[in-house]
Amino acid sequence: MRIYVAVKLDGRQRARLLAACSGDELFFEDQATDEHTFKSCEIAFGNPRASWINSSEQLRWIQLESVGFGEYASLEPACLQRLVGISNLEDFFSEPVAESILAGILGLCRGVAELARTQARQIWLGDEMRPSLTTLHSAAVVLFGRGNINRRVEELLLPFGCAVTRFGRDWARVDMERAIVSADIVICTVPHTPETQGLFDRALISKMKPRALFANFGRGSLVDETALSEALTCGALGGAVIDVTQQEPLPLDHPFWHCPNLLLTQHTAGGTKDETDRKIDLFLSNLARYRDGCLPRGLVNFERGY
Amino acid sequence: MRIYVAVKLDGRQRARLLAACSGDELFFEDQATDEHTFKSCEIAFGNPRASWINSSEQLRWIQLESVGFGEYASLEPACLQRLVGISNLEDFFSEPVAESILAGILGLCRGVAELARTQARQIWLGDEMRPSLTTLHSAAVVLFGRGNINRRVEELLLPFGCAVTRFGRDWARVDMERAIVSADIVICTVPHTPETQGLFDRALISKMKPRALFANFGRGSLVDETALSEALTCGALGGAVIDVTQQEPLPLDHPFWHCPNLLLTQHTAGGTKDETDRKIDLFLSNLARYRDGCLPRGLVNFERGY
Repeated sequence: MRIYVAVKLDGRQRARLLAACSGDELFFEDQATDEHTFKSCEIAFGNPRASWINSSEQLRWIQLESVGFGEYASLEPACLQRLVGISNLEDFFSEPVAESILAGILGLCRGVAELARTQARQIWLGDEMRPSLTTLHSAAVVLFGRGNINRRVEELLLPFGCAVTRFGRDWARVDMERAIVSADIVICTVPHTPETQGLFDRALISKMKPRALFANFGRGSLVDETALSEALTCGALGGAVIDVTQQEPLPLDHPFWHCPNLLLTQHTAGGTKDETDRKIDLFLSNLARYRDGCLPRGLVNFERGY
Repeated sequence: MRIYVAVKLDGRQRARLLAACSGDELFFEDQATDEHTFKSCEIAFGNPRASWINSSEQLRWIQLESVGFGEYASLEPACLQRLVGISNLEDFFSEPVAESILAGILGLCRGVAELARTQARQIWLGDEMRPSLTTLHSAAVVLFGRGNINRRVEELLLPFGCAVTRFGRDWARVDMERAIVSADIVICTVPHTPETQGLFDRALISKMKPRALFANFGRGSLVDETALSEALTCGALGGAVIDVTQQEPLPLDHPFWHCPNLLLTQHTAGGTKDETDRKIDLFLSNLARYRDGCLPRGLVNFERGY
């Protein structure tokens, strides 16, 4: 089979993939492959250019290296019909993202980010810091997003005895507002959809308690970034952990860089040292299913949008 | 009763204590009280000068505002006999310290300290950071110290599915070494005793795995600080979270300030915004017991030393 590999691999990872697919022809995107080569392939591993796909008549299956697939939302029906499907990484990032969420929230409670910056400036704050610290124990937590990530967050929160309120795709604005008014922590992991875009606007942010913490690990489009940075700057909000922003990399003049009590995790939350190897594992496991005539695991649903 | 208050209180806290002890005479240390005043008191709240205590014939009970009481180890037997006892804060700091330990360890795994410093310099690392990140899930953890703090740490670690090995006061060097060789994370919360002093020396540190993390939240005397900073600098150790150091504040020329992958939490781990109010709560609750002729809770054991 001809397989197009859009995932960036180092030499060892490439050798591993070649060894596992010794009967196939592999084309690596970074080795000057072009649209013509892509169109000769039956399988794509990684996220290839969306514009190439509609007219790729040999293509049967794409194994994405992401959970999101918004860039492929406008594929033509005829193209989708030709495909066995497009599979995404589903649950792949739940553990690292949930751990980054807890690290960020707990880091704000216990002053980790502030202490790291203070250390770099060789300043001893010590006792002075203590009255600014809080604990996560018994906090009222709102989880917005009921996917794998927030399910895992809820497991990690169990020993802290938090009072957790969950909102999924069928949230009602009035219930959400009521929960947010009394929340100590709001954690968002929702995808970009027409319903979530701009949802955390100035009005909703202003309903949060002055010491409350806000975390966004879904998509940057959820939040009015100006309103959020103003709320943090004037002390109307306690802190925020922001993994996703509307523009990435964040522009140099963006207020988030120097916003007080805002920790910017720079869309690293899914990362792990074995991330690419695990992507190869998953691709090879789905490839074995494909060879056996089974559907790959993790086929995406374009109607639902996530 | 005459009560000597060595705890630093703000105006509101002082008013609260005065209202709760309206039938007593309170002497606040920061209001020019002297040894003579101290010696007229029956009760002390806070950590008074050790040198005043032996000859304070009225004194019956000291409620410390710390867990450690090493500074009072050389009180004379006659003095100890005169006292109902000295009570410490026992379990008081378990929740905040355990949360700071998890925040620090998880922060090293998920790059929080590094990201905070990078943000301050307005640098976008993003994807570049991802291969340096790890997860806490399934890690092999050694807990050295079996007191309330590490008990709470173990509860907080439960959802991470870690393999936990515990060592208390009866550890055997050979077992400890065996556990440390294969540990991903070593968390120390032991007090300063002749047995713990200098225990984490160059030899023991060198047995740790090159990616392992080390946390010290007990006493600084446990660790050879030069050996630790050298191991981190040459990459023989993955990272460290250090709350306690041999000298506090840390001297400006100490290698810990700029040691790679070392997070210095500056002895803040016990801190919370309501710390002093909780100390007052505990004192008042023990004072009620004392008035009723009951023993205060949390009497320390000088023979055991913690």
